[in-house]
Amino acid sequence: MLSDIDICRTTKLASITDIATQSGLLAQEFHPQGQYKAKVSLKALHRVKDNISGKLVVVTAITPTPLGEGKTVTTIGLSQGLKKLQKSVFACIRQPSMGPIFGVKGGAAGGGFSQVAPMEELNLHLTGDIHAVTAAHNLASAALDARIYHEQRQGYDDFEARTGLKALRIDVRNVVWKRVVDHNDRALRMVTVGRNEANKTINGYEREDGFDISAASELMAILALSEDLADLRRRIGKIVLAYSLDGTPITTEDLQVAGAMAVSMKDTIEPTLMQTLEGVPTLVHTGPFANIAHGNSSVIADRIATKLAQYTVTEGGFGSDMGFEKACNIKAASTDKKPDCAVIVATLRGLKANSGLYDLKPGTPIPDSLYGEDQIALKAGFENLKWHINNVAKYGVPAVVAINRFPQDSEQELGTLMAWVEKLGCRVAISEGFAKGGTGTEDLAQQVISACESPADFRPLYRQEQSILEKLTTVCEAGYGAGRVTLSYQAQQQLAIYEKQGFNHLAVCLAKTPLSITTDGSIKGAPTGFDVVIRELRLCAGAGFVYALCGNVMTMPGLPDKPAFMSLDLDQDGNIVGLS
Amino acid sequence: MLSDIDICRTTKLASITDIATQSGLLAQEFHPQGQYKAKVSLKALHRVKDNISGKLVVVTAITPTPLGEGKTVTTIGLSQGLKKLQKSVFACIRQPSMGPIFGVKGGAAGGGFSQVAPMEELNLHLTGDIHAVTAAHNLASAALDARIYHEQRQGYDDFEARTGLKALRIDVRNVVWKRVVDHNDRALRMVTVGRNEANKTINGYEREDGFDISAASELMAILALSEDLADLRRRIGKIVLAYSLDGTPITTEDLQVAGAMAVSMKDTIEPTLMQTLEGVPTLVHTGPFANIAHGNSSVIADRIATKLAQYTVTEGGFGSDMGFEKACNIKAASTDKKPDCAVIVATLRGLKANSGLYDLKPGTPIPDSLYGEDQIALKAGFENLKWHINNVAKYGVPAVVAINRFPQDSEQELGTLMAWVEKLGCRVAISEGFAKGGTGTEDLAQQVISACESPADFRPLYRQEQSILEKLTTVCEAGYGAGRVTLSYQAQQQLAIYEKQGFNHLAVCLAKTPLSITTDGSIKGAPTGFDVVIRELRLCAGAGFVYALCGNVMTMPGLPDKPAFMSLDLDQDGNIVGLS
Repeated sequence: MLSDIDICRTTKLASITDIATQSGLLAQEFHPQGQYKAKVSLKALHRVKDNISGKLVVVTAITPTPLGEGKTVTTIGLSQGLKKLQKSVFACIRQPSMGPIFGVKGGAAGGGFSQVAPMEELNLHLTGDIHAVTAAHNLASAALDARIYHEQRQGYDDFEARTGLKALRIDVRNVVWKRVVDHNDRALRMVTVGRNEANKTINGYEREDGFDISAASELMAILALSEDLADLRRRIGKIVLAYSLDGTPITTEDLQVAGAMAVSMKDTIEPTLMQTLEGVPTLVHTGPFANIAHGNSSVIADRIATKLAQYTVTEGGFGSDMGFEKACNIKAASTDKKPDCAVIVATLRGLKANSGLYDLKPGTPIPDSLYGEDQIALKAGFENLKWHINNVAKYGVPAVVAINRFPQDSEQELGTLMAWVEKLGCRVAISEGFAKGGTGTEDLAQQVISACESPADFRPLYRQEQSILEKLTTVCEAGYGAGRVTLSYQAQQQLAIYEKQGFNHLAVCLAKTPLSITTDGSIKGAPTGFDVVIRELRLCAGAGFVYALCGNVMTMPGLPDKPAFMSLDLDQDGNIVGLS
Repeated sequence: MLSDIDICRTTKLASITDIATQSGLLAQEFHPQGQYKAKVSLKALHRVKDNISGKLVVVTAITPTPLGEGKTVTTIGLSQGLKKLQKSVFACIRQPSMGPIFGVKGGAAGGGFSQVAPMEELNLHLTGDIHAVTAAHNLASAALDARIYHEQRQGYDDFEARTGLKALRIDVRNVVWKRVVDHNDRALRMVTVGRNEANKTINGYEREDGFDISAASELMAILALSEDLADLRRRIGKIVLAYSLDGTPITTEDLQVAGAMAVSMKDTIEPTLMQTLEGVPTLVHTGPFANIAHGNSSVIADRIATKLAQYTVTEGGFGSDMGFEKACNIKAASTDKKPDCAVIVATLRGLKANSGLYDLKPGTPIPDSLYGEDQIALKAGFENLKWHINNVAKYGVPAVVAINRFPQDSEQELGTLMAWVEKLGCRVAISEGFAKGGTGTEDLAQQVISACESPADFRPLYRQEQSILEKLTTVCEAGYGAGRVTLSYQAQQQLAIYEKQGFNHLAVCLAKTPLSITTDGSIKGAPTGFDVVIRELRLCAGAGFVYALCGNVMTMPGLPDKPAFMSLDLDQDGNIVGLS
């Protein structure tokens, strides 16, 4: 079979103007950026806001393994299958971060005959939104350190007299806003900034700091959850950057930098329109990871899509304990459009890997035995799929299991797995989007259409008026199935402060490993009664949630010893090679 | 008079497709990015490469003052004046950095009726080139720190056995590649990266590092000096990031990251086409500062423009000791197109400020007395203009002095100044681009046309085969007029290494204050016989020069206590306010 990039390059794409027009956008509602990308104006949303909404399908998965389950392939493939069945359809996906692309993945545009194209544009800078988020984020950091420096150097009274500004008296030990970069750069996790040569003070005030990957920026979440530009601006103004010496939260408004941040992010409010290899209009918008952020594409993109098409297929990152949980408990709270159906992606090899009977490590070759028949491993791994089917049911969303087929898969095992799923009363279909594009997902599309017609009774796990602690406990216990939730001393202190400051109405966004339902990536299958330790909380008042770091999850990935970037280059004609 | 942004918004702009077509580009040679920007393909250059080149006009200035001399206004105004005289013309400018925009300037698109439009797009992300440079630069940093980490953690032998890669044995005390960010962020000048919590090593190897502003990145210089994508790729591969424990230079090729960096910068090779308020096609490309980098737009943009039009107007940053020197000694060496004429921008108030008789500080109000008549200050300040006229003459480039007129200027003083310049045998014209657009620069345009017809005898100050030390001495003595050049101990050591490693053929790029011809910003006028101390050298083997840091110049600016970003915001209709 051809490589992803070869398939992508040999497919004749439509001009983005044709894609936009066919999808129901008017000429003044989109701005082409070159031949195959267009920014979509929110004017479109304003025009169609009273349309009846189409169905919203959220693609999720079993607990992922280092092998990859093909969630994006299934998302794109399904959208193409729906198109084959003469339905109007949009796909809504996130912009890939360059961190994982250069680090491990080498690309994140789907694959085979189910790709968003051109894949090199999707995988690299696209229309610059992640860069704009990064720039706005780091502007706040520069503003904060500059204010600390000038207030300290001039003295509070002199600072006020000279500038006419109120001294903020920032507590340098209580700065909660880190910097960000869109790379996997572990050396930046913990840094000391403001260092000076001996006896000098020209480089600012020395303090401990760190960098997160841009996908974990609160600004990324704000962008994904905002209704419009005015909402974006309002939310940015609520961000708490630090605390003063007397414990008062210091916001971006206090620093008078919220406006400039919104200016820097102005164009990011517009989703980028692209197309799949079979011409399905695809909105690419925002890029939060589902382990260290809320893991879903934007409210705005979903809204444009559901107002224009009968079906919108989107995805929540990682397993249903991750992106799907946040789609239901965080994202759905910011929009009137609730999920009509969930697709749970599973693979034979992924289920076997979830059995705990294989020792798989990222970067090491997949054992051949995983492709042979192994009913024992399949049966053990099936517990994980069952867990995710049950998890989706908690939210009152009808589910369809999509078995993403690989060429080596055994017909008999596929049949067995289908029978097991059907026995649970759950819809199921084989999905062959990778090898066959939309033709390979028509069965799945039929099942999704049927699920969308069944009565939905969407309900999030918690209500806004519950306390932060109740919400955390609910997600861990009712959601993950934990037996006990413990907060570290630091997290307890933070919780007390947030409660006192009136942030109890916020949602909760848990950051944890995606490789297990628990907070320990080595525990496979469908464990119950485990402990969850929340080691740290972070207030995201603009995004509207309290961020809870569990286990040893890190908000800045690192590069492996043989990173994916090593195979990337330009050939003699200037074409990109090595992106997959 | 209307504000810059109001003038810009009330001017009816042509579609970028019309601008491109009128400027001689074919449909397949440019890709519109929205309505008013287009990326220009190098296919265009290939098609027109045998055309006779038009004239290249480089705009420079007297030694700048905190008041601003209006060099960009004059550059844009002059291009519009040439158009009024029925000449075909391009303007070529650099992309403004967001650092100064948010810090002090609030915008850098020209002003009044001589602007590049839309100014908010030019001033913010434009087509993302600076972000792509930043991303590629920091990818190398992440790659380097990851390699140090994995080699140290696994041990060299185990690392080689496990990965099949050769251990680079990087000397962590001899890493010469810093990180970059496109902000004024003094707290990042000196940082410690790779810090860990007690007894842990998961965050990498602790070492001293720092951030430069992206405009000073070697990648920015490489982009500006490259002939085409293949040249860009080759130059990136020559970058020296660090040295091994035995002193061997470690390049991006050694890290196998050069290809990925070129991939990340692929689209930056194409200049962005915009327009002036009077429809002059304007290529915006690269953004090196002239104090801490080589300060000129790209070889590629100039080449496209000069092959398509009779006149190309570009600018070198700051005074003629800065950007213009580097245009002649660095940029001209990378291209067959040499400057045909230099325009030296002067203002009455700028010359008076150069007299040393006024005490001006950035951010404090301009004394009213500066606008009154003051022949003594004007006469004293004229020495500075004379210096720059003589300096331009050293390169064999015909000069025209452009007196950028302000509304408060005295007719009599303008007359006096013109007479003084004429007495030196130099062409001179009053330029009113700000208030009148192209109509206000027709006289200047006539003088420039005449200068371009005079016999040019371009000669750089030094030859490639001279030693680095001879080149440094030549720029300081024959160029600036210094009496003595001293290298710090560190710079001497570095020089010895570069010589030994065969880098003597490289050009030299001096980084110094732009506020004086000397390396001390407080010394005004036209001093001679002063000392220059070179405190540090940096090898830029890919850009093709050795970078010399003089005096106390810093490669990362800081934000003032009342930064420009404080006035930036979105209004209720989502329009940007506060950008000027």
